[in-house]
Amino acid sequence: MAEQVTLLDSWPSPFGMRVRIALALKGIDHEYKEEDLANKSPLLLQINPVHKKIPVLVHNGKPISESLVIVQYIDEVWSDKSPLLPADPYERAKARFWADFIDKKLYDAGTKVWMKKGEEQEAAKKGFVDILKLLESELGEKPFFGGESLGYVDVALVPFYSWFYTYETAASFSIELECPTLMRWAKRCLGFDGVSKSLPDSHKIYDFVINILRKRYGGE
Amino acid sequence: MAEQVTLLDSWPSPFGMRVRIALALKGIDHEYKEEDLANKSPLLLQINPVHKKIPVLVHNGKPISESLVIVQYIDEVWSDKSPLLPADPYERAKARFWADFIDKKLYDAGTKVWMKKGEEQEAAKKGFVDILKLLESELGEKPFFGGESLGYVDVALVPFYSWFYTYETAASFSIELECPTLMRWAKRCLGFDGVSKSLPDSHKIYDFVINILRKRYGGE
Repeated sequence: MAEQVTLLDSWPSPFGMRVRIALALKGIDHEYKEEDLANKSPLLLQINPVHKKIPVLVHNGKPISESLVIVQYIDEVWSDKSPLLPADPYERAKARFWADFIDKKLYDAGTKVWMKKGEEQEAAKKGFVDILKLLESELGEKPFFGGESLGYVDVALVPFYSWFYTYETAASFSIELECPTLMRWAKRCLGFDGVSKSLPDSHKIYDFVINILRKRYGGE
Repeated sequence: MAEQVTLLDSWPSPFGMRVRIALALKGIDHEYKEEDLANKSPLLLQINPVHKKIPVLVHNGKPISESLVIVQYIDEVWSDKSPLLPADPYERAKARFWADFIDKKLYDAGTKVWMKKGEEQEAAKKGFVDILKLLESELGEKPFFGGESLGYVDVALVPFYSWFYTYETAASFSIELECPTLMRWAKRCLGFDGVSKSLPDSHKIYDFVINILRKRYGGE
Protein backbone atom coordinates (compact mmCIF):
# COMPACT_ATOMS: atom_id res chain seq x y z
CA MET A 1 0.00 0.00 0.00
CA ALA A 2 1.31 3.46 -0.87
CA GLU A 3 1.81 5.50 2.27
CA GLN A 4 -0.45 8.53 2.53
CA VAL A 5 1.04 11.15 4.83
CA THR A 6 -0.40 14.60 5.41
CA LEU A 7 0.86 17.26 7.82
CA LEU A 8 -1.45 19.98 9.09
CA ASP A 9 0.85 22.74 10.22
CA SER A 10 1.37 26.48 10.55
CA TRP A 11 4.67 27.79 9.21
CA PRO A 12 5.92 29.80 12.27
CA SER A 13 5.19 26.95 14.73
CA PRO A 14 8.31 25.48 16.37
CA PHE A 15 6.16 22.45 17.20
CA GLY A 16 5.24 22.00 13.54
CA MET A 17 8.92 22.42 12.60
CA ARG A 18 9.81 19.40 14.73
CA VAL A 19 7.55 17.24 12.61
CA ARG A 20 8.80 18.83 9.38
CA ILE A 21 12.40 18.02 10.42
CA ALA A 22 11.57 14.41 11.34
CA LEU A 23 9.77 13.87 8.02
CA ALA A 24 12.67 15.44 6.11
CA LEU A 25 15.38 13.48 7.93
CA LYS A 26 13.51 10.24 7.27
CA GLY A 27 12.81 11.21 3.64
CA ILE A 28 9.03 10.75 3.94
CA ASP A 29 6.96 12.11 1.06
CA HIS A 30 3.95 13.97 2.34
CA GLU A 31 1.35 16.59 1.62
CA TYR A 32 1.68 19.85 3.59
CA LYS A 33 -1.49 21.73 4.57
CA GLU A 34 -1.04 25.21 5.99
CA GLU A 35 -3.60 26.10 8.67
CA ASP A 36 -4.79 29.61 9.44
CA LEU A 37 -4.84 29.50 13.25
CA ALA A 38 -7.14 32.52 13.40
CA ASN A 39 -9.65 30.54 11.34
CA LYS A 40 -9.07 26.84 11.88
CA SER A 41 -10.24 24.43 9.22
CA PRO A 42 -13.11 21.99 9.86
CA LEU A 43 -10.58 19.21 9.16
CA LEU A 44 -8.28 20.33 12.01
CA LEU A 45 -11.19 20.62 14.46
CA GLN A 46 -12.38 17.18 13.43
CA ILE A 47 -9.05 15.33 13.72
CA ASN A 48 -7.74 17.07 16.84
CA PRO A 49 -10.95 17.79 18.77
CA VAL A 50 -9.17 17.67 22.16
CA HIS A 51 -6.54 20.39 21.71
CA LYS A 52 -7.60 21.88 18.33
CA LYS A 53 -3.91 22.55 17.64
CA ILE A 54 -1.39 21.95 14.92
CA PRO A 55 0.69 19.99 14.14
CA VAL A 56 -1.39 16.94 13.27
CA LEU A 57 0.05 14.14 11.16
CA VAL A 58 -2.41 11.97 9.25
CA HIS A 59 -0.91 8.64 8.25
CA ASN A 60 -3.11 6.42 6.06
CA GLY A 61 -6.20 8.17 7.43
CA LYS A 62 -5.16 7.97 11.11
CA PRO A 63 -4.46 11.29 12.89
CA ILE A 64 -1.72 11.79 15.50
CA SER A 65 -1.43 15.00 17.54
CA GLU A 66 1.15 16.62 19.85
CA SER A 67 4.55 17.20 18.27
CA LEU A 68 6.64 14.96 20.52
CA VAL A 69 4.14 12.12 20.18
CA ILE A 70 4.26 12.55 16.39
CA VAL A 71 8.08 12.58 16.27
CA GLN A 72 8.24 9.36 18.31
CA TYR A 73 5.59 7.82 16.03
CA ILE A 74 7.58 8.76 12.92
CA ASP A 75 10.72 7.32 14.49
CA GLU A 76 8.97 4.03 15.30
CA VAL A 77 7.21 3.58 11.94
CA TRP A 78 10.08 4.69 9.69
CA SER A 79 12.79 3.05 11.79
CA ASP A 80 15.10 2.13 8.91
CA LYS A 81 16.62 5.60 8.44
CA SER A 82 17.99 8.38 10.72
CA PRO A 83 17.03 6.90 14.12
CA LEU A 84 16.06 9.69 16.52
CA LEU A 85 15.50 8.00 19.88
CA PRO A 86 18.58 6.11 21.14
CA ALA A 87 18.37 2.32 21.46
CA ASP A 88 19.41 2.13 25.13
CA PRO A 89 16.46 2.51 27.55
CA TYR A 90 18.34 4.84 29.92
CA GLU A 91 19.45 7.09 27.06
CA ARG A 92 15.86 7.04 25.76
CA ALA A 93 14.59 8.10 29.19
CA LYS A 94 17.10 10.96 29.29
CA ALA A 95 16.08 12.07 25.79
CA ARG A 96 12.39 12.01 26.77
CA PHE A 97 13.17 13.94 29.95
CA TRP A 98 14.92 16.77 28.09
CA ALA A 99 12.40 16.95 25.26
CA ASP A 100 9.66 17.20 27.89
CA PHE A 101 11.66 19.90 29.71
CA ILE A 102 11.90 21.95 26.50
CA ASP A 103 8.17 21.45 25.93
CA LYS A 104 7.23 22.62 29.41
CA LYS A 105 9.54 25.61 29.62
CA LEU A 106 10.90 27.17 26.46
CA TYR A 107 7.96 28.43 24.39
CA ASP A 108 6.19 30.08 27.33
CA ALA A 109 9.44 31.60 28.60
CA GLY A 110 10.15 32.93 25.09
CA THR A 111 6.66 34.39 24.74
CA LYS A 112 7.20 36.47 27.87
CA VAL A 113 10.44 37.82 26.35
CA TRP A 114 8.67 39.40 23.35
CA MET A 115 5.41 40.24 25.11
CA LYS A 116 6.59 41.99 28.25
CA LYS A 117 8.25 45.37 28.68
CA GLY A 118 10.51 47.00 31.26
CA GLU A 119 11.30 45.13 34.46
CA GLU A 120 9.01 42.25 33.57
CA GLN A 121 10.89 41.82 30.32
CA GLU A 122 14.23 41.84 32.14
CA ALA A 123 12.96 39.06 34.42
CA ALA A 124 11.61 37.15 31.41
CA LYS A 125 14.94 37.47 29.63
CA LYS A 126 16.82 36.15 32.65
CA GLY A 127 14.41 33.21 32.96
CA PHE A 128 14.78 32.42 29.28
CA VAL A 129 18.59 32.57 29.35
CA ASP A 130 18.65 30.37 32.47
CA ILE A 131 16.73 27.70 30.56
CA LEU A 132 19.13 27.91 27.61
CA LYS A 133 22.15 27.70 29.94
CA LEU A 134 20.71 24.60 31.58
CA LEU A 135 20.29 23.04 28.13
CA GLU A 136 23.82 24.13 27.25
CA SER A 137 25.20 22.38 30.32
CA GLU A 138 23.31 19.21 29.38
CA LEU A 139 24.81 19.40 25.89
CA GLY A 140 28.29 19.76 27.37
CA GLU A 141 31.06 18.79 24.97
CA LYS A 142 28.86 16.59 22.81
CA PRO A 143 28.24 17.67 19.18
CA PHE A 144 24.53 16.89 19.57
CA PHE A 145 22.18 16.23 22.48
CA GLY A 146 21.87 12.76 20.99
CA GLY A 147 25.68 12.32 21.19
CA GLU A 148 27.51 11.88 17.90
CA SER A 149 24.39 12.08 15.75
CA LEU A 150 21.40 14.39 15.62
CA GLY A 151 18.51 12.91 17.65
CA TYR A 152 15.21 13.43 19.42
CA VAL A 153 16.24 16.29 21.74
CA ASP A 154 17.97 18.11 18.88
CA VAL A 155 14.76 17.87 16.84
CA ALA A 156 12.73 19.11 19.81
CA LEU A 157 14.96 22.13 20.42
CA VAL A 158 16.41 23.37 17.13
CA PRO A 159 13.14 24.91 15.81
CA PHE A 160 13.47 27.59 18.49
CA TYR A 161 16.64 28.76 16.74
CA SER A 162 14.39 30.38 14.13
CA TRP A 163 12.75 32.39 16.95
CA PHE A 164 16.04 33.52 18.55
CA TYR A 165 16.27 36.66 16.39
CA THR A 166 12.78 37.67 17.58
CA TYR A 167 13.65 37.21 21.26
CA GLU A 168 16.96 39.03 20.83
CA THR A 169 15.50 41.95 18.90
CA ALA A 170 12.42 42.34 21.10
CA ALA A 171 14.48 42.40 24.29
CA SER A 172 17.90 43.71 23.16
CA PHE A 173 20.24 40.89 24.07
CA SER A 174 22.49 38.40 22.32
CA ILE A 175 21.96 34.67 22.73
CA GLU A 176 25.31 34.19 20.98
CA LEU A 177 27.04 36.09 23.81
CA GLU A 178 25.07 34.31 26.55
CA CYS A 179 25.25 30.78 25.17
CA PRO A 180 28.03 30.44 22.57
CA THR A 181 28.19 26.65 22.84
CA LEU A 182 24.47 26.33 22.18
CA MET A 183 24.75 28.57 19.13
CA ARG A 184 27.56 26.41 17.72
CA TRP A 185 25.28 23.39 18.27
CA ALA A 186 22.41 25.13 16.42
CA LYS A 187 24.64 25.89 13.46
CA ARG A 188 25.83 22.27 13.45
CA CYS A 189 22.17 21.16 13.24
CA LEU A 190 21.57 23.57 10.37
CA GLY A 191 24.23 21.69 8.43
CA PHE A 192 21.53 19.05 7.84
CA ASP A 193 19.32 19.88 4.86
CA GLY A 194 16.39 18.32 6.72
CA VAL A 195 16.81 20.95 9.43
CA SER A 196 17.72 24.04 7.42
CA LYS A 197 14.89 23.51 4.90
CA SER A 198 12.32 23.01 7.68
CA LEU A 199 13.05 26.28 9.50
CA PRO A 200 11.58 29.53 8.19
CA ASP A 201 13.62 32.69 7.86
CA SER A 202 14.23 34.39 11.24
CA HIS A 203 13.17 37.82 9.94
CA LYS A 204 9.88 36.41 8.68
CA ILE A 205 9.22 35.02 12.19
CA TYR A 206 10.02 38.42 13.70
CA ASP A 207 7.64 40.15 11.32
CA PHE A 208 4.93 37.58 12.15
CA VAL A 209 5.40 37.97 15.92
CA ILE A 210 5.43 41.77 15.89
CA ASN A 211 2.70 42.37 13.32
CA ILE A 212 0.37 39.42 13.91
CA LEU A 213 0.91 37.69 17.26
CA ARG A 214 1.47 40.84 19.31
CA LYS A 215 -1.70 42.35 17.93
CA ARG A 216 -3.67 39.13 18.41
CA TYR A 217 -2.57 38.55 22.02
CA GLY A 218 -1.92 42.12 23.06
CA GLY A 219 1.73 42.56 24.03
CA GLU A 220 2.39 45.17 26.68
CA MET B 1 24.41 -8.20 38.58
CA ALA B 2 21.67 -7.84 41.14
CA GLU B 3 19.34 -5.00 40.19
CA GLN B 4 19.36 -2.08 42.60
CA VAL B 5 16.14 -0.11 42.38
CA THR B 6 15.21 2.79 44.66
CA LEU B 7 12.13 4.99 44.43
CA LEU B 8 12.13 8.47 45.95
CA ASP B 9 8.50 9.32 46.43
CA SER B 10 5.90 11.07 48.56
CA TRP B 11 2.91 8.98 49.56
CA PRO B 12 0.04 11.31 48.45
CA SER B 13 1.57 11.96 45.01
CA PRO B 14 -0.49 10.61 42.09
CA PHE B 15 2.70 10.87 40.02
CA GLY B 16 4.59 8.71 42.50
CA MET B 17 1.66 6.25 42.53
CA ARG B 18 2.12 5.71 38.77
CA VAL B 19 5.65 4.47 39.39
CA ARG B 20 4.57 2.38 42.40
CA ILE B 21 1.92 0.70 40.23
CA ALA B 22 4.35 0.01 37.37
CA LEU B 23 6.92 -1.49 39.79
CA ALA B 24 4.22 -3.61 41.44
CA LEU B 25 2.70 -4.87 38.17
CA LYS B 26 6.16 -5.86 36.94
CA GLY B 27 7.08 -7.41 40.30
CA ILE B 28 10.26 -5.34 40.73
CA ASP B 29 11.86 -5.46 44.18
CA HIS B 30 12.89 -1.99 45.29
CA GLU B 31 13.67 0.24 48.20
CA TYR B 32 11.10 2.99 48.91
CA LYS B 33 12.31 6.32 50.29
CA GLU B 34 9.65 8.74 51.53
CA GLU B 35 10.53 12.39 50.88
CA ASP B 36 9.32 15.30 53.01
CA LEU B 37 8.46 17.82 50.28
CA ALA B 38 8.56 20.68 52.78
CA ASN B 39 12.16 19.73 53.53
CA LYS B 40 13.63 17.96 50.51
CA SER B 41 16.59 15.65 51.04
CA PRO B 42 20.05 16.47 49.68
CA LEU B 43 19.77 13.24 47.67
CA LEU B 44 16.61 14.42 45.85
CA LEU B 45 18.14 17.82 45.06
CA GLN B 46 21.25 16.11 43.77
CA ILE B 47 19.59 13.54 41.50
CA ASN B 48 16.79 15.75 40.15
CA PRO B 49 18.44 19.20 40.09
CA VAL B 50 16.24 20.41 37.20
CA HIS B 51 12.76 19.96 38.67
CA LYS B 52 13.64 19.01 42.29
CA LYS B 53 10.52 16.84 42.31
CA ILE B 54 9.51 13.32 43.17
CA PRO B 55 9.18 10.66 41.88
CA VAL B 56 12.73 9.75 40.97
CA LEU B 57 13.68 6.16 40.20
CA VAL B 58 17.30 5.19 40.70
CA HIS B 59 18.25 2.06 38.80
CA ASN B 60 21.76 0.72 39.40
CA GLY B 61 22.89 4.21 40.38
CA LYS B 62 21.25 6.02 37.43
CA PRO B 63 18.40 8.44 38.22
CA ILE B 64 15.29 8.90 36.05
CA SER B 65 12.77 11.69 36.69
CA GLU B 66 9.25 12.59 35.51
CA SER B 67 6.63 9.93 36.16
CA LEU B 68 5.66 9.17 32.55
CA VAL B 69 9.31 8.95 31.52
CA ILE B 70 9.91 6.55 34.42
CA VAL B 71 6.91 4.35 33.58
CA GLN B 72 8.07 4.06 29.95
CA TYR B 73 11.59 3.24 31.17
CA ILE B 74 10.28 0.50 33.48
CA ASP B 75 8.20 -0.89 30.62
CA GLU B 76 11.21 -0.99 28.29
CA VAL B 77 13.71 -2.48 30.79
CA TRP B 78 11.37 -5.04 32.38
CA SER B 79 9.61 -5.93 29.15
CA ASP B 80 9.00 -9.60 29.94
CA LYS B 81 5.98 -9.09 32.22
CA SER B 82 2.80 -6.96 32.14
CA PRO B 83 3.52 -4.86 29.04
CA LEU B 84 2.13 -1.35 29.46
CA LEU B 85 2.68 0.39 26.13
CA PRO B 86 0.98 -1.40 23.21
CA ALA B 87 3.17 -2.93 20.49
CA ASP B 88 1.53 -1.13 17.54
CA PRO B 89 3.05 2.31 16.84
CA TYR B 90 -0.34 4.00 16.29
CA GLU B 91 -1.76 2.57 19.51
CA ARG B 92 1.46 3.66 21.28
CA ALA B 93 1.01 7.18 19.91
CA LYS B 94 -2.60 7.26 21.13
CA ALA B 95 -1.54 6.02 24.57
CA ARG B 96 1.18 8.71 24.79
CA PHE B 97 -1.31 11.36 23.65
CA TRP B 98 -3.82 10.51 26.41
CA ALA B 99 -1.20 10.11 29.14
CA ASP B 100 0.16 13.52 28.15
CA PHE B 101 -3.38 14.95 28.20
CA ILE B 102 -3.90 13.67 31.75
CA ASP B 103 -0.52 15.11 32.74
CA LYS B 104 -1.29 18.53 31.33
CA LYS B 105 -4.85 18.85 32.61
CA LEU B 106 -6.00 16.75 35.54
CA TYR B 107 -3.86 17.62 38.56
CA ASP B 108 -4.10 21.37 38.06
CA ALA B 109 -7.84 21.17 37.38
CA GLY B 110 -8.27 19.10 40.54
CA THR B 111 -6.21 21.50 42.65
CA LYS B 112 -8.58 24.32 41.71
CA VAL B 113 -11.51 22.17 42.86
CA TRP B 114 -10.24 21.91 46.47
CA MET B 115 -8.55 25.32 46.62
CA LYS B 116 -11.23 27.63 45.29
CA LYS B 117 -14.55 28.66 46.84
CA GLY B 118 -17.89 29.94 45.57
CA GLU B 119 -18.27 30.72 41.89
CA GLU B 120 -14.61 29.98 41.14
CA GLN B 121 -15.06 26.55 42.66
CA GLU B 122 -18.18 25.92 40.57
CA ALA B 123 -16.21 26.79 37.43
CA ALA B 124 -13.31 24.58 38.58
CA LYS B 125 -15.71 21.69 39.23
CA LYS B 126 -17.22 22.03 35.76
CA GLY B 127 -13.76 22.13 34.16
CA PHE B 128 -12.69 19.06 36.12
CA VAL B 129 -15.81 17.06 35.22
CA ASP B 130 -15.43 18.06 31.55
CA ILE B 131 -11.93 16.53 31.56
CA LEU B 132 -13.21 13.32 33.16
CA LYS B 133 -16.07 13.10 30.65
CA LEU B 134 -13.63 13.47 27.78
CA LEU B 135 -11.56 10.64 29.24
CA GLU B 136 -14.73 8.61 29.72
CA SER B 137 -15.62 9.06 26.05
CA GLU B 138 -12.13 7.92 25.04
CA LEU B 139 -12.55 4.82 27.25
CA GLY B 140 -15.88 4.08 25.56
CA GLU B 141 -16.93 0.44 25.89
CA LYS B 142 -13.41 -0.87 26.49
CA PRO B 143 -12.63 -2.44 29.90
CA PHE B 144 -9.35 -0.49 30.04
CA PHE B 145 -7.86 2.46 28.16
CA GLY B 146 -5.30 -0.08 26.94
CA GLY B 147 -8.11 -2.27 25.54
CA GLU B 148 -8.52 -5.72 27.08
CA SER B 149 -5.62 -5.32 29.50
CA LEU B 150 -4.48 -2.62 31.89
CA GLY B 151 -1.89 -0.38 30.22
CA TYR B 152 -0.01 2.91 30.17
CA VAL B 153 -3.00 5.29 30.20
CA ASP B 154 -4.67 3.32 32.97
CA VAL B 155 -1.47 3.59 35.04
CA ALA B 156 -1.31 7.33 34.32
CA LEU B 157 -4.92 7.99 35.36
CA VAL B 158 -5.93 5.58 38.12
CA PRO B 159 -3.86 7.26 40.89
CA PHE B 160 -6.28 10.19 40.74
CA TYR B 161 -9.01 7.83 41.95
CA SER B 162 -7.47 8.13 45.42
CA TRP B 163 -7.99 11.91 45.20
CA PHE B 164 -11.62 11.72 44.01
CA TYR B 165 -13.01 11.68 47.57
CA THR B 166 -11.09 14.91 48.29
CA TYR B 167 -12.44 16.67 45.19
CA GLU B 168 -15.98 15.45 45.89
CA THR B 169 -15.96 16.39 49.55
CA ALA B 170 -14.29 19.78 49.06
CA ALA B 171 -16.75 20.81 46.35
CA SER B 172 -19.91 18.79 47.15
CA PHE B 173 -20.43 16.70 44.05
CA SER B 174 -20.40 13.07 43.04
CA ILE B 175 -18.00 11.79 40.39
CA GLU B 176 -19.95 8.52 40.45
CA LEU B 177 -23.08 10.39 39.32
CA GLU B 178 -21.21 12.45 36.71
CA CYS B 179 -19.04 9.68 35.25
CA PRO B 180 -20.40 6.23 36.16
CA THR B 181 -18.48 4.45 33.38
CA LEU B 182 -15.20 5.93 34.56
CA MET B 183 -15.93 4.83 38.13
CA ARG B 184 -16.59 1.27 36.96
CA TRP B 185 -13.25 1.42 35.11
CA ALA B 186 -11.45 2.63 38.27
CA LYS B 187 -12.91 -0.23 40.31
CA ARG B 188 -11.84 -2.67 37.59
CA CYS B 189 -8.27 -1.32 37.91
CA LEU B 190 -8.42 -1.72 41.69
CA GLY B 191 -8.99 -5.43 41.10
CA PHE B 192 -5.25 -5.61 40.43
CA ASP B 193 -3.20 -5.98 43.63
CA GLY B 194 -0.48 -3.87 41.99
CA VAL B 195 -2.96 -1.00 41.76
CA SER B 196 -4.90 -1.33 45.02
CA LYS B 197 -1.74 -1.71 47.14
CA SER B 198 -0.12 1.34 45.49
CA LEU B 199 -2.98 3.75 46.24
CA PRO B 200 -3.29 5.30 49.70
CA ASP B 201 -6.58 5.50 51.56
CA SER B 202 -8.85 8.25 50.18
CA HIS B 203 -9.61 9.65 53.64
CA LYS B 204 -5.88 9.95 54.39
CA ILE B 205 -5.47 11.99 51.18
CA TYR B 206 -8.39 14.23 52.21
CA ASP B 207 -6.86 14.81 55.63
CA PHE B 208 -3.48 15.61 54.01
CA VAL B 209 -5.01 18.07 51.53
CA ILE B 210 -7.14 19.91 54.08
CA ASN B 211 -4.67 19.99 56.97
CA ILE B 212 -1.32 20.23 55.16
CA LEU B 213 -1.63 21.33 51.52
CA ARG B 214 -4.32 23.96 52.06
CA LYS B 215 -2.30 25.52 54.85
CA ARG B 216 0.93 25.34 52.85
CA TYR B 217 -0.52 26.89 49.68
CA GLY B 218 -3.28 28.96 51.20
CA GLY B 219 -6.63 27.79 49.86
CA GLU B 220 -9.28 30.48 49.65
